[in-house]
Amino acid sequence: MSVVDLAQFMEDLATQSGAAILPFFRAHFGLDDKSHGTGRAFDPVTEADRAAEAVMRRMIKDRLPNHGILGEEFGSERADAECVWVLDPIDGTRAFISGLPTWGTLIGLTHHGAAVRGLMHQPYLGERFLGDGKTASVRSPKGERRLHTRRSEALGDAILATTDPRLFAEGEEAERFRAVEAEVKMSRYGADCYAYCMLAAGQIDLVVEAGLKPYDIVALIPIVEGAGGVVTTWDGGPATGGGRIVAAGDRRLHDAALRRLNP
Amino acid sequence: MSVVDLAQFMEDLATQSGAAILPFFRAHFGLDDKSHGTGRAFDPVTEADRAAEAVMRRMIKDRLPNHGILGEEFGSERADAECVWVLDPIDGTRAFISGLPTWGTLIGLTHHGAAVRGLMHQPYLGERFLGDGKTASVRSPKGERRLHTRRSEALGDAILATTDPRLFAEGEEAERFRAVEAEVKMSRYGADCYAYCMLAAGQIDLVVEAGLKPYDIVALIPIVEGAGGVVTTWDGGPATGGGRIVAAGDRRLHDAALRRLNP
Repeated sequence: MSVVDLAQFMEDLATQSGAAILPFFRAHFGLDDKSHGTGRAFDPVTEADRAAEAVMRRMIKDRLPNHGILGEEFGSERADAECVWVLDPIDGTRAFISGLPTWGTLIGLTHHGAAVRGLMHQPYLGERFLGDGKTASVRSPKGERRLHTRRSEALGDAILATTDPRLFAEGEEAERFRAVEAEVKMSRYGADCYAYCMLAAGQIDLVVEAGLKPYDIVALIPIVEGAGGVVTTWDGGPATGGGRIVAAGDRRLHDAALRRLNP
Repeated sequence: MSVVDLAQFMEDLATQSGAAILPFFRAHFGLDDKSHGTGRAFDPVTEADRAAEAVMRRMIKDRLPNHGILGEEFGSERADAECVWVLDPIDGTRAFISGLPTWGTLIGLTHHGAAVRGLMHQPYLGERFLGDGKTASVRSPKGERRLHTRRSEALGDAILATTDPRLFAEGEEAERFRAVEAEVKMSRYGADCYAYCMLAAGQIDLVVEAGLKPYDIVALIPIVEGAGGVVTTWDGGPATGGGRIVAAGDRRLHDAALRRLNP
């Protein structure tokens, strides 16, 4: 086996998964679907999810047979390998179904369990957010730019994003989230993986979520950290396992959020 | 004054307002803004809003001096004119601020108070949704397509969108919304004007909102109706005045939603 350029291989995964997904996005757009509600249920997001993960798994097995894979659709293989690819073909299922281009394909790589490389790809917009924990950048039809988080110390100045306030379990978990939300300048729902990328880009300051799976977050960690941000669990531990996650563009803001999340 | 082609003039308004807005979108993207939190507050969304509305107002006054104007930023002029332009330069302020391309410029035209033409422009994506109440279409870098809403009769099969569940006044208004939300298959937050355009495109089935201003909805009415949908207030009246709005892709679903909203 020849030596594989991991950065280039990751880009190839994004290109091929994007090609697999795009035919399903807005597939019915403008069609007067006479068969709606009858016949076999056509579920574009599931079809796209499975097609994209299948193509990425095949590429990884062909080129990097010793690497492990953890994917949203088809589970894990060689999860104890030194290097494991962590894949979510469509993060933001509800955005995808609704025809909104704020979903993304998440491609992460762990080394001995640590998230070392990440790529978020939005093939409809042609936007790729990349990070390796030390630097982060975005590449789009508008060009390529380095990403830097925004300095922001106080919750009262912060823009907060979360995918859906209903994802917090009613009771203590939801109350802790609301304690943070009550203090911020503005909060925004429905961003999914874009929340973390916009945090890396300095557009928003804080992301608070719960119930994440590893494939929802692993790819985003090297992007957030590479742009100068901090991402951990609510109790300050590694984010790679998912669960309750808090990301901030500024360590002081992260500390302030942790205090509200752990009263 | 020569005869003005209203459809072309509307496109020109979109082109010029888009050019005014785009420099402010993601203006700080990737910049390591050392001045953050100090000095004069730079508010990109307000700057963009005002610049875009100013350019549209100037074009209307130059070309169509007898027409009225109602805009989000600079109020109304000749509101009793036969034809009135209803403008919201940036619908989806929070999306804009957060760097997400799901805001849009709304350009509507009323004739004797009825919404007769509408255009929603997303200049970052290059997407234009157009309607005249009889037909609707979308034009984007992917081409041009007619828009048709989706047939869907039952709330239990419907995808619902609303901008933010916190926009409903706690008490009766929020309870009525939740009565609808409790029955649908899926609900999605944070779509702003895109919710109505995705309804016109057959991606989602139902939009329920409250507290809208005329400039939040007038441009969207001819698009929704032109695609085969229905948009009214919660009590079934004309939507042109804003307020509590319910839009559906299918009249039967609209009826079902009205029953839950008026128990």
